[in-house]
Amino acid sequence: MATKKTNTTNNIGKEALYIIKVGGNIIDDEEKLSGFLKQFSELKSPFDGSEIKKILIHGGGKLATKLAEQVGIPQQLIDGRRITDAETLKIVTMVYAGYINKNIVAKLQANHCNAIGLSGADGNIIEAHKRIHPTIDYGYAGDIDTVNTGFLENLLDQDIAIVIAPITHNKKGQLLNTNADTIAQEIARSMSILYDVNLIYSFEKTGVLLDANDESTVIRSIKPGYYAQLKAEKKIFAGMIPKIDNAFVALNSGVKQVTIGKAEELQKLISHSAGTSITNE
Amino acid sequence: MATKKTNTTNNIGKEALYIIKVGGNIIDDEEKLSGFLKQFSELKSPFDGSEIKKILIHGGGKLATKLAEQVGIPQQLIDGRRITDAETLKIVTMVYAGYINKNIVAKLQANHCNAIGLSGADGNIIEAHKRIHPTIDYGYAGDIDTVNTGFLENLLDQDIAIVIAPITHNKKGQLLNTNADTIAQEIARSMSILYDVNLIYSFEKTGVLLDANDESTVIRSIKPGYYAQLKAEKKIFAGMIPKIDNAFVALNSGVKQVTIGKAEELQKLISHSAGTSITNE
Repeated sequence: MATKKTNTTNNIGKEALYIIKVGGNIIDDEEKLSGFLKQFSELKSPFDGSEIKKILIHGGGKLATKLAEQVGIPQQLIDGRRITDAETLKIVTMVYAGYINKNIVAKLQANHCNAIGLSGADGNIIEAHKRIHPTIDYGYAGDIDTVNTGFLENLLDQDIAIVIAPITHNKKGQLLNTNADTIAQEIARSMSILYDVNLIYSFEKTGVLLDANDESTVIRSIKPGYYAQLKAEKKIFAGMIPKIDNAFVALNSGVKQVTIGKAEELQKLISHSAGTSITNE
Repeated sequence: MATKKTNTTNNIGKEALYIIKVGGNIIDDEEKLSGFLKQFSELKSPFDGSEIKKILIHGGGKLATKLAEQVGIPQQLIDGRRITDAETLKIVTMVYAGYINKNIVAKLQANHCNAIGLSGADGNIIEAHKRIHPTIDYGYAGDIDTVNTGFLENLLDQDIAIVIAPITHNKKGQLLNTNADTIAQEIARSMSILYDVNLIYSFEKTGVLLDANDESTVIRSIKPGYYAQLKAEKKIFAGMIPKIDNAFVALNSGVKQVTIGKAEELQKLISHSAGTSITNE
């Protein structure tokens, strides 16, 4: 029991907060998305079965690219990164903050989960600036400056689940396109002052795999020493390294735990009975 | 001074709330919209110059029709009313709740007006049902059932301006397209329990005109007796009759005052020094 208690509250009595990023492949699949949202609606504390405080951050999926094609807006990529020109910003604002965000909220409401969908401009929750780069103009891509933790806390205190679209603003009237993984990480870092934050990246894979082609090779737990060993032995799937590096950045900024795993196993990810848990100790 | 006091609070001490609908022609004109939003940001109480509580409801403008054309979705009209099929609903959700709503919020934030953009699904603020009609299938058109006044009150208490897109939901996972004038009216009626509500319809005309082609013929004040007289003498522009009838419905449901006038004169509409004021007494 003592162990459970230290898991729900820390020394200064902070409550748990679950920040969940859901990947674009889930957004694109109506059936998978519905299953995921049902689980999200019903999430319970792994410690006492009570309701939990939760924030969902969604990516974009392929709908924005499809709409851009339909209206004849060419997509520019530099080094694999999308350039957000004015017309592309319009498309992603419509698709992410409009269509995807509002449909997720409507589905959560149907599941008796009171939710609110927000962009970074709403309640000034995420202030950002246009990316500065010495050689590449990324267009209307936003790098995050501040998170309005007080306003998010007020909504969470009303037992409202917060659903965030990956659109921010610069407080000078300009909307900006911001990577959803980065939003999840920055909100997790900022909210760590107020809560014991569990950051969960949910996508189509079961977790960090030793063999990228074998879903059964999921690594259940990664700590700094073991991570160094996995990298030295080149046993870790290369594409995962930036994600795990980012997880350690989050942990070193006060986030309690980072979990990576399958969207369909969300309650199990919360309960640490599936996926890969990344912790500092 | 005594008169002023009875205007700011009534017998049971209700605070004033300004609910402002802005028309599509203003939304479509970037310069007019910016000017309107600047005024909206700076609105002051006509009685003591203090900050006021305010809700903005925006219509759609022509962007949805344009986008529907670009992606090749034919628009169906029956008796002049748009039929919201599944593809049209997707378009209006993207344009109204995404593009227009988020750009308005970003502009208000730039004007140092903390604002939040919501659809009816967010915080379950407007629950509706799919329109039932004996002969016409309007598609995903929503008629309003309930307004979540408590949640709106909580946001207003945090000095946040609320910006509402004309998209509602049925709490069964379905988004619905709802007329913005109707949303303004229903929110005004519901919020009258908590506030002294001033409902303002702002658009491109200076108010209710005696001569539709002469902006100088604005009628400054309409009360039931005078309205009956204007109608009997056929002195009122026919297209205005449903708007004024709706205003009286609102007044009879507890709304304190309805004002119709020019968006560019918003502070004057608030101060009753421009536009047409419609009251019961």
